[in-house]
Amino acid sequence: MPAAPHGFPTPKYRTVTAYLSELLDELAEGTPIPAERELAVRFTVARETVRQAIRELVVAGRLRREGRATVVAGPKLVQPLALASYTEGIREAGRRPGRTAVTLGRLYADAPLAEALDIGPGEPVAHLERVLLCDDQPVGLENTYLPLRRFPRVLDEFDPSTSLYAYIEACGVRFATASERIETTLASPREARLLRTNPALPMLHLNRLSRDAAGRPIERVRSLFRGDRFSFTTTLHAP
Amino acid sequence: MPAAPHGFPTPKYRTVTAYLSELLDELAEGTPIPAERELAVRFTVARETVRQAIRELVVAGRLRREGRATVVAGPKLVQPLALASYTEGIREAGRRPGRTAVTLGRLYADAPLAEALDIGPGEPVAHLERVLLCDDQPVGLENTYLPLRRFPRVLDEFDPSTSLYAYIEACGVRFATASERIETTLASPREARLLRTNPALPMLHLNRLSRDAAGRPIERVRSLFRGDRFSFTTTLHAP
Repeated sequence: MPAAPHGFPTPKYRTVTAYLSELLDELAEGTPIPAERELAVRFTVARETVRQAIRELVVAGRLRREGRATVVAGPKLVQPLALASYTEGIREAGRRPGRTAVTLGRLYADAPLAEALDIGPGEPVAHLERVLLCDDQPVGLENTYLPLRRFPRVLDEFDPSTSLYAYIEACGVRFATASERIETTLASPREARLLRTNPALPMLHLNRLSRDAAGRPIERVRSLFRGDRFSFTTTLHAP
Repeated sequence: MPAAPHGFPTPKYRTVTAYLSELLDELAEGTPIPAERELAVRFTVARETVRQAIRELVVAGRLRREGRATVVAGPKLVQPLALASYTEGIREAGRRPGRTAVTLGRLYADAPLAEALDIGPGEPVAHLERVLLCDDQPVGLENTYLPLRRFPRVLDEFDPSTSLYAYIEACGVRFATASERIETTLASPREARLLRTNPALPMLHLNRLSRDAAGRPIERVRSLFRGDRFSFTTTLHAP
């Protein structure tokens, strides 16, 4: 990015952020950065200024905490917003996808969920919660809700370590469209624990409702992705 | 959303969040919420638990701070991801758009900006920075970079309180596509000040590169939107 705009002095830590950022370009993923006091001496600033720059680079996903060390992070994963499974997207990025099931159970739809899935309030729903892994690191948390009326055997048949989209298609249901809402949020303490991150890191929060060609709802999905590890892309066209 | 999944106890503050959330449904936008100690008594929890629930609802955009008071926030603005101007989108949501220019000046492209705009490094670029308003509240910050070679009179002719997209089209340039990257970030202290928010609130960060029908870059835009006030939607189609 270009330097600070005209008429605004660059805050000192931003200069340190820029210097550090150049330094990181030359270091391999996983390399620990120099100690704070060493950087403070090198840039002739206060240690608090160095700390602020480091915090900013952690949130930006350029650095990550590893125990007490701060190391160079790999590039952010860039994923197209697409009606495709997580597994495919990660594989196309040349990374190794994985999933850990946290919950596979039955619950009873409250009013908003029932409305989204076009079922009656209180009707049973399969709830699947999985931690999404990329190269064995937890990067996201996915909560899927499926109407049991449409997928009556999912709780018995589905192996949560496999692709849910493959299972749904094997049931003869074809995805046609999905409406997706994108927000940002902080992780709750429980979510932060599952993602081995801290609740002050912003997350990307995707809400999806997918439908078949007849417009019938298939699933409601709420996914959280670590904001320091993920970005999404899309192509827009003039109307 | 349904209750906590099986096998995980709901943390106490989450119960308070749910109660408070129901209470908010009955209060008009701008109504101050009851005092923390009153809520602590009502829900028989510690004040710290009430505070945590309130923090969560502020980040979620259900509550907002107004000086020392905490009041009910209006609904989040839902905007389609579209190659349309901010002004149109806000107007379609039935709100009053506005813009305040912060910077309109010339700068010289660094290597990444030059590459994005397909110009030489060091070539002059018009930089326009504006605070985006919705019903007079600052909700976003937009930084646009235009190659001066293509828009040689923009610094003299363009009135930054008007629509830049209208100006660009008046120059005979037509938007065809844009690639958009969506991330989340924390605002820098300067950005937080311009948006009258605090740097701990997550922001949605959009990077756009728009092109004409011949594929020539028109502009590079970096927009920050307050995560407590904005969400974006899109419709996905099966391949």
